[in-house]
Amino acid sequence: MTVTAPAQEATTTAEIIETDAVVIGAGPCGLFAIFELGLLDIKAHVVDILDRPGGQCAELYPEKPIYDVPALPTVTGQELTDRLMEQIKPFGATFHFSEQINTLKREADGRFRLTTDAGTECLTKVVVIAAGGGSFTPKRPPLAGIEDYEGKSVFYSVRKIEQMRGKDVVIVGGGDSALDWTLNLAPVANSLTLVHRRDEFRGAPHSVEKMRKLVADGQIRLLIGQVTTLEGADGELSSVQIKTADGVESVPCTAMLPFFGLTMKLGPVADWGLNLHENLINVDTERFETSEPGIFAIGDINWYPGKLKLILSGFHEAALMAQAAHRIVYPNKKLMFQYTTSSSNLQKKLGVK
Amino acid sequence: MTVTAPAQEATTTAEIIETDAVVIGAGPCGLFAIFELGLLDIKAHVVDILDRPGGQCAELYPEKPIYDVPALPTVTGQELTDRLMEQIKPFGATFHFSEQINTLKREADGRFRLTTDAGTECLTKVVVIAAGGGSFTPKRPPLAGIEDYEGKSVFYSVRKIEQMRGKDVVIVGGGDSALDWTLNLAPVANSLTLVHRRDEFRGAPHSVEKMRKLVADGQIRLLIGQVTTLEGADGELSSVQIKTADGVESVPCTAMLPFFGLTMKLGPVADWGLNLHENLINVDTERFETSEPGIFAIGDINWYPGKLKLILSGFHEAALMAQAAHRIVYPNKKLMFQYTTSSSNLQKKLGVK
Repeated sequence: MTVTAPAQEATTTAEIIETDAVVIGAGPCGLFAIFELGLLDIKAHVVDILDRPGGQCAELYPEKPIYDVPALPTVTGQELTDRLMEQIKPFGATFHFSEQINTLKREADGRFRLTTDAGTECLTKVVVIAAGGGSFTPKRPPLAGIEDYEGKSVFYSVRKIEQMRGKDVVIVGGGDSALDWTLNLAPVANSLTLVHRRDEFRGAPHSVEKMRKLVADGQIRLLIGQVTTLEGADGELSSVQIKTADGVESVPCTAMLPFFGLTMKLGPVADWGLNLHENLINVDTERFETSEPGIFAIGDINWYPGKLKLILSGFHEAALMAQAAHRIVYPNKKLMFQYTTSSSNLQKKLGVK
Repeated sequence: MTVTAPAQEATTTAEIIETDAVVIGAGPCGLFAIFELGLLDIKAHVVDILDRPGGQCAELYPEKPIYDVPALPTVTGQELTDRLMEQIKPFGATFHFSEQINTLKREADGRFRLTTDAGTECLTKVVVIAAGGGSFTPKRPPLAGIEDYEGKSVFYSVRKIEQMRGKDVVIVGGGDSALDWTLNLAPVANSLTLVHRRDEFRGAPHSVEKMRKLVADGQIRLLIGQVTTLEGADGELSSVQIKTADGVESVPCTAMLPFFGLTMKLGPVADWGLNLHENLINVDTERFETSEPGIFAIGDINWYPGKLKLILSGFHEAALMAQAAHRIVYPNKKLMFQYTTSSSNLQKKLGVK
């Protein structure tokens, strides 16, 4: 659930971004990739479908402790993310949150042209796929014909609140996303109906309270039940049928927002023609490069003999990948292997010298 | 510089230790190997030539910050070691410090028999070499014929103070080891002469002060200069010639202790018949196993295409090694891959559930 922030909107109208590397995924491995690339003077842009860094870690278990990150006996997903964000600060990577890669094509000059669903366009020498289990995609409600309405009058996220002005909005779900958007859209919608299968909400108590006040004030409706039928034509909804304990009711609806949670799938990566192994991207263990030279894959999304889906393995993969990326970004520069402990050159980059 | 501690002495008289794994080297990678092995119920004994955990990290740069350990933007070698010791606490590994592996042989039953120079003897199913740049070995002073005296009257470490009782001891060097042994041996030696090339000492100020008091009290001699010639026969020193600003002096000497610092060399590992690559041990990238099944090598001591001598790579290698070790230690148990974040079984082992 994200609204495009002003920072991202700027890029939609801007010219093409030229960069050394685009990292797809801002989970722990994507973040550490920025660090390893940064040490080698490789500038990176990062694209993530979520609206903040951390990936699965921060999204699925922000508060749950992880015990196997080396030298951090206990760390939560959120703390790990914060620590990595701190570590990569010196390298000033640009983040494009709430965006998904739409297309990835190689140009005549060998670089890659990437576009996102928010209109961002990049030309890059190197692509690092660090997309974890794949894209988070919204779960689709099991409603006949829903595909026909998606993107026109069924939305799984709201890019701009204005898009909903004057609409008859039906929001389905009982979590924070459903509640937050109920509160955000109530002032702009023509009508708003929140539908949830039972009268209990998983969302934050103060959001539930605010929602109930809007219902009590007659500003929105709350129906306990479920949407059974979509009515409309040419992708435009006109109403939905909702089954409650009292029977079936037809509710005017020109925009439906189902918030049934997120699921993971490989997403557009599956269409890039890379060699896959059971839906994971095959890489070598020297460079963690895919079957397409210049496209690397690190972290949970890759596969090689012995692969373990551990955060610490993604860190190692990021380090070796960066060496190989350096040969592409700076084909004429010889890379001297240096330690952060002893190299004043690296320490300068890290801002500690 | 270590005296064999009572805990280690006990093992010299004890029966043979039977264990799942022996980890050679207690640097960061060896320590994290204990963690990964422990998660898989593989009990480990650890042997290190140093007298404490941390390896190079704690020995060569205990106070110097490291910047590239993931999610630890700045960490000293000592702090990293402390954090890893904390993390492996649940697994109760047994440490054998100040010991070096002497022999490593495979038994008829497939296990390995290891002996150390302190008399420790282990039978183990798996050996993990995590010996970093190799063994730390004392630097040999450039004195003609010194090899003939080593182990008989020239010593680079003192295992038992009693060994020095009644001797004419000459200690050479200006660091903490030279000073500490000067203070420790003064009461038991027949005579003690400290030789250092200049009248400045790198050791702790209070040690320098104590040493100077012994000199002032006439209990020991301090000569500013250097040993030029060894005199003796059949490995037994009788005197050494020391050149000072005043000329050359012959000093009675039946035990010389040169403390010129440590250097790294592969040590006995070189004699175990493993395939080497420029003095590093060849391993595969699936199991990090050497050419000898059941012997693994992780961290700075191994080599594979793309290898970087980074601590974070050793961590990854430890994790994959542990999976392969499990197949040897528990040949009939199927290993289920589990996450510490979600597995209550792993959390129980970690003592957090």
